[in-house]
Amino acid sequence: MTGGPSAGVRPLATAEVIAVGSELLGSTRLDTNSLFLSEILSSLGIVLRAKAVVGDSRREIAAVLRGALERVDLVILTGGLGPTDDDLTREAVSDVLGVPLVEHADIVEHLTQRFARRGLKMPDVNRRQAQILRGGVVVENPNGTAPGQMFERGHQVILLLPGPPRELKAMMAELARTALAQRSGTERLFRTTLFIVGRGESHVEEIAQPVYSTWLQDTPPIETTILAAPGQIELHLVVRSADASAAERALAEAREQLVAVLGADVFSIDGRSMEEIVGALLLERTLTIAAAESCSGGLMMSRLTDVPGSSAYVAGGVVVYSNELKTTLAGVDPAVMGVHGAVSEPVAMALAEGIRARTGASIGVGITGIAGPTGGTPEKPVGTVCIAVVGREGASAVRTFSLFGTRTMIKFWSAQYAMNMVRRMLLEV
Amino acid sequence: MTGGPSAGVRPLATAEVIAVGSELLGSTRLDTNSLFLSEILSSLGIVLRAKAVVGDSRREIAAVLRGALERVDLVILTGGLGPTDDDLTREAVSDVLGVPLVEHADIVEHLTQRFARRGLKMPDVNRRQAQILRGGVVVENPNGTAPGQMFERGHQVILLLPGPPRELKAMMAELARTALAQRSGTERLFRTTLFIVGRGESHVEEIAQPVYSTWLQDTPPIETTILAAPGQIELHLVVRSADASAAERALAEAREQLVAVLGADVFSIDGRSMEEIVGALLLERTLTIAAAESCSGGLMMSRLTDVPGSSAYVAGGVVVYSNELKTTLAGVDPAVMGVHGAVSEPVAMALAEGIRARTGASIGVGITGIAGPTGGTPEKPVGTVCIAVVGREGASAVRTFSLFGTRTMIKFWSAQYAMNMVRRMLLEV
Repeated sequence: MTGGPSAGVRPLATAEVIAVGSELLGSTRLDTNSLFLSEILSSLGIVLRAKAVVGDSRREIAAVLRGALERVDLVILTGGLGPTDDDLTREAVSDVLGVPLVEHADIVEHLTQRFARRGLKMPDVNRRQAQILRGGVVVENPNGTAPGQMFERGHQVILLLPGPPRELKAMMAELARTALAQRSGTERLFRTTLFIVGRGESHVEEIAQPVYSTWLQDTPPIETTILAAPGQIELHLVVRSADASAAERALAEAREQLVAVLGADVFSIDGRSMEEIVGALLLERTLTIAAAESCSGGLMMSRLTDVPGSSAYVAGGVVVYSNELKTTLAGVDPAVMGVHGAVSEPVAMALAEGIRARTGASIGVGITGIAGPTGGTPEKPVGTVCIAVVGREGASAVRTFSLFGTRTMIKFWSAQYAMNMVRRMLLEV
Repeated sequence: MTGGPSAGVRPLATAEVIAVGSELLGSTRLDTNSLFLSEILSSLGIVLRAKAVVGDSRREIAAVLRGALERVDLVILTGGLGPTDDDLTREAVSDVLGVPLVEHADIVEHLTQRFARRGLKMPDVNRRQAQILRGGVVVENPNGTAPGQMFERGHQVILLLPGPPRELKAMMAELARTALAQRSGTERLFRTTLFIVGRGESHVEEIAQPVYSTWLQDTPPIETTILAAPGQIELHLVVRSADASAAERALAEAREQLVAVLGADVFSIDGRSMEEIVGALLLERTLTIAAAESCSGGLMMSRLTDVPGSSAYVAGGVVVYSNELKTTLAGVDPAVMGVHGAVSEPVAMALAEGIRARTGASIGVGITGIAGPTGGTPEKPVGTVCIAVVGREGASAVRTFSLFGTRTMIKFWSAQYAMNMVRRMLLEV
């Protein structure tokens, strides 16, 4: 299948997302799939007009779906496709469309084999997942047991997709390349994002606003949104156009203008995370890294090793909460801790040097601080974090940060700033 | 005003929340007010049946509101009460109810004074915020300019509240004490959750379903939902009752019945995470823990140290990606790796024993495996993970797991299973 609308069928212009699941109506959990769906729909030039969340009730799923079908071209239902009694999306859609469900032998076979590969017998309940709307098209799920379904009614399309984000994302991305691309119009949304660390939201705004405010009058106009996310400030640039190369050119120029004013605080211009950026720099320079972490509890190493291929440049490291382990595992001289305290720049340096020596890594990182909620003093309150980076040929940097927020936020920011210091050192050499 | 339903009016039993604002339909922002509203509604015994998000369109707000009024007793609209042209909630509700908006002189006066106190003249646009549905009741907003509104129609109630969380929360909390308490029934919602690890969703269902299926006929009936979350299967139990002690008793009994059939695979009966449960067990027994992590890259230590107070029982540990570091940092005999390979139960044991000896911790954990996406072999495919736990007096356990999913999922599950093995060992001693 290729892009562009099919001849004679009105292209899909509007959409509504219905997330199914009683757990999404409680006080602890939100439907986050709609964020991804909104983005991918907008890349197809389809406007998300409304979202709904409904519990595991056949009657209520049906009622909300009926409302949506009165208003939009495309309705995407997520969740409720599991094998159990409270997975009722299939039945509710069948009720609304007046189309029966039929069991697909192929899917039963596929599911049976999937279980068999793990040495398991398929439980009987899983047969429910083979129930497909008559006339509907099966959407394959490479990452799970629940297949999706696509049903066309006149110019309208109804999509049933599973709730787990990993399954949904792969399936929706594939549909956006194929069936949905065929049914959408010629205008597309193009976007780029810049990630910034080391400046607050209002400072970024102050610097960037005079630049981006002029772009709304350009052809094509660029819309800019500024957003504070954990560990970074984000600038989202969006262009709507039928001309892909003009849009990409405009975004590239805009990006350059922003980098010119924001400088090296921009750490990513292509959506890659800090750990991906640092990993790519290390790989490019064939260097390795090791860390001795106290208050960040191993989070920096864990984030670095989230990146596929990171075993090429992550040597390893230690987590050293107690002063004893700072000495036995990272070689910190107890006298240095005695004089300066465990949370101090000299100890951060000793951790970085010690772990670099013990692992033979090109770069050593030391992190020591107070993540809270207790343990602070008037001189060194919760959030005080000292970070050191030691490289080859005596290159080194050490800084003390005053971080705010919960324990997990302070851990996250410690790891983020440590990786940013590594990034800055790598850019300089 | 006091609690308890007004004589002769059917109490409010069901609700729907409609969040108004085009910014909530993009790819970056979610409506989070509904979490707070869900909690406060359930404390009043009112069930949140559905949620919706709609853009700043008079027609679409009206359409979604019409749908909600067909299904529930209470509709809460949040947002769209500001002074500008795209604040259209008032008008849309007026359209649906067929009730005109009238300007309240009191509110105009109040707004004028509010601006005057800051030395400002009220902009003319703010007069729109004084438009109240005829017959409606003004809900005071102590934290902002937009007043709320409450309108009763038969047994139904429509609430208009502002979007900013600080304003909404104060107003809703006050309504829950007064007008809504008067209109709600005597029944309240009570809930509990069980977290399970080591069994798949359908296996948990198979075991638990014969137990919980009987509870719907009990007095009070218990509704059960089963949910697959990252690292765990969750069972959510909900009871609706006017008798708090009967409800709590029923939930406690139900919980016991489930634990009886699911056994030690139930790791949490109070919403605490695996790292909190393991931490509490260690603290209780005044034990400490250390880990030597390979494929999990420090994630287990990072998760354990997410818990406030964890420095009391987390000694520390090492991240050892390379074979060299497995030897130098964790004392693994190179010969053992030569014979069995780095991903093997003997190496997991050597890691656990080595880190326990080097840190002096009561419990040592060793994790070695292949997180992927590359590095697998036919004998040891991606997802093969060996985990060992070594305790005092020679207690030890070692297992090999076959995990599925992305690199970060395999890391997460490795840490989850390792902590679960620690938990099982702690429960046995």
